[in-house]
Amino acid sequence: MKFNNRNVHISATATIGKNVRIGDNTTIYDNVVIGDNVTICNDCVLGEPTSAYYQNEESYVNKPTYIGTGAFIRSHCIIYAGTSLGEGCITGHRVTIRENTIAGKHCLISTLVDIQGNCKIGDYSRIYSNVHIGEQTVIGNYVFIYPYTIFTNDPQPPSTTLSGAHVDDYSIITIHCKVLPGVRVGKHCLVGANSVISRDIEEYSFAMGAPAKRIRDIREIPSKMDNTESYYPWPYHFERGMPWQGIGYDKWVEDRGVADNG
Amino acid sequence: MKFNNRNVHISATATIGKNVRIGDNTTIYDNVVIGDNVTICNDCVLGEPTSAYYQNEESYVNKPTYIGTGAFIRSHCIIYAGTSLGEGCITGHRVTIRENTIAGKHCLISTLVDIQGNCKIGDYSRIYSNVHIGEQTVIGNYVFIYPYTIFTNDPQPPSTTLSGAHVDDYSIITIHCKVLPGVRVGKHCLVGANSVISRDIEEYSFAMGAPAKRIRDIREIPSKMDNTESYYPWPYHFERGMPWQGIGYDKWVEDRGVADNG
Amino acid sequence: MKFNNRNVHISATATIGKNVRIGDNTTIYDNVVIGDNVTICNDCVLGEPTSAYYQNEESYVNKPTYIGTGAFIRSHCIIYAGTSLGEGCITGHRVTIRENTIAGKHCLISTLVDIQGNCKIGDYSRIYSNVHIGEQTVIGNYVFIYPYTIFTNDPQPPSTTLSGAHVDDYSIITIHCKVLPGVRVGKHCLVGANSVISRDIEEYSFAMGAPAKRIRDIREIPSKMDNTESYYPWPYHFERGMPWQGIGYDKWVEDRGVADNG
Repeated sequence: MKFNNRNVHISATATIGKNVRIGDNTTIYDNVVIGDNVTICNDCVLGEPTSAYYQNEESYVNKPTYIGTGAFIRSHCIIYAGTSLGEGCITGHRVTIRENTIAGKHCLISTLVDIQGNCKIGDYSRIYSNVHIGEQTVIGNYVFIYPYTIFTNDPQPPSTTLSGAHVDDYSIITIHCKVLPGVRVGKHCLVGANSVISRDIEEYSFAMGAPAKRIRDIREIPSKMDNTESYYPWPYHFERGMPWQGIGYDKWVEDRGVADNG
Repeated sequence: MKFNNRNVHISATATIGKNVRIGDNTTIYDNVVIGDNVTICNDCVLGEPTSAYYQNEESYVNKPTYIGTGAFIRSHCIIYAGTSLGEGCITGHRVTIRENTIAGKHCLISTLVDIQGNCKIGDYSRIYSNVHIGEQTVIGNYVFIYPYTIFTNDPQPPSTTLSGAHVDDYSIITIHCKVLPGVRVGKHCLVGANSVISRDIEEYSFAMGAPAKRIRDIREIPSKMDNTESYYPWPYHFERGMPWQGIGYDKWVEDRGVADNG
Repeated sequence: MKFNNRNVHISATATIGKNVRIGDNTTIYDNVVIGDNVTICNDCVLGEPTSAYYQNEESYVNKPTYIGTGAFIRSHCIIYAGTSLGEGCITGHRVTIRENTIAGKHCLISTLVDIQGNCKIGDYSRIYSNVHIGEQTVIGNYVFIYPYTIFTNDPQPPSTTLSGAHVDDYSIITIHCKVLPGVRVGKHCLVGANSVISRDIEEYSFAMGAPAKRIRDIREIPSKMDNTESYYPWPYHFERGMPWQGIGYDKWVEDRGVADNG
């Protein structure tokens, strides 16, 4: 139904892998590199040019845009030149990712997410619907960001300073949070709904409020699932789509030989 | 201006009623059923296939999608297969409704609303701009949900459990509220701006805060309109587009023979 | 890359200035007036007809829509008939502006902003991503509205009363604020993240909270930039894109002969 090559325009300088599907009404601009087994749905724009293009169309050169092997881009996404999505990344609809953002492998970037450019997102992280990520934000691996959370970057608005926030591996920031410029959320944190994260949060914290404060250690949060043990660190209880799926988190850590015990 | 049959693609298996207008650049996929007197504006996608389609295009069968008589779908909407919008429903622009959601008749679903699928929405309910509705949410009849409110469904993120919230008839949830998994908001409630609804709210409550608590009975809220009587239950004071328009709420209830006294 | 005249449709009654670029898949409806040196990117809709069009296509006349000299409209915007964007305005992607909204010159209206119609926005104001502006809101000059802030207009929902808020010149409303119907934010205010603005805020206030209350005078907020002086009023410290760029705010005020000393 979707792949009829109607109103599809692909630059002669784009590189398209094997077994790639490109939906109707999609445009792929110069120097986009698409890996094998990628699906780009309808009405997408890949390699969207940066502002410099409009100033001088003749001399402008579009930076390369990479879409990794097996990625799946739903309809109506706009991905700028200079951005790279790793192997197996999945997007929702109407995602906008500005220039020079690097997302790792197997990330999920859901419907209406707006990433402003020059950001880093690690592997296996999930950015849910309508999250707004300001420039220079850095998000680690296995991180979950829930709907309508915002990452800001201007420490004293309006200014020309850009100071992105950092979220370390395995942390969860739930819905409608406000992450203020330059703060760092340590690894394995859980931040409650509607929090204003205005100061650094140490690792393994369950934090909430405005300003968000550490309430307790995440390992002390009882499980709502079975009432017997703590649910956190979550990798011991959740594996769908994670690299430890089918083998368990402990075994995966052991196999990697990494000194990261969750 | 809008209906020139340019770049319009309609599946041979779609069923189109009488007096239907379909805007330019709109695509209608397999097994969409459109009632009489429907307007679908430009750049829409109806019957968007589910994930299974991409796994096997050959064997995939698109579930029927229903657009009721007299419905009006504004531009740039994406409505998935298996979803049904009742008679007289109206949407804003850029609405996304995933699979198997059933909306009743005469609902309003405004610009940028994102409904994640497997939801139920009753009759005459109004979902305003940029509301996000997680899977398995159930919204009753004559309900108002105001902009940027979110319905979540994961009781302990990240988990694979889905527990949608319920909002009963005649309730109003104002802007920027966070409705947590599995909670129930009783009928005729009013929830103030920016609340976190983390526990059930009993019927006829005016509630607010984080967590949202009952402040008083809605029937004790003075009217801002005339300073003489309570504004709530609102059906006695508001009728535009409601089934009691022109006859009044009491008469309508009496005519229906329903033991629902507002 | 963008301007190939593919699937571009321009009404015979539109007026297009000199040196105008119009992107692929863009539609320009009746009576749109585009100034010189304007760029309209791809997949835009300008002069979107109002509801009356659908009721009687034959008799409907589209109100004029104005796009000022040098404006730059990014892709996927929908701008309704009767709306006017001043000279040098810039938009992000997927902006929706309904009918009869008047924006002054050199405004920025970022990605996913949703302006509901019949609003006024002054000169040089910046509306950042995903701001929602209800009908009849009035925003002054040199105002900054940060992401996910909402302007509402219904004093007792649901009602048929529309009471827009006002934000006076030079004020800043930061992220995730809720501006309630009919309130007025005086000039040179700064409102902190996540505030609920339910009462008027007097000029030069730094306010925050729910409800937002004056915490102190903005002139008492220390600068985070150099720790020596107050950062506010901001025009003394920020000039990028402002009319006082290169000459300083004091000199600009003096040159204008305006008794506004910031």
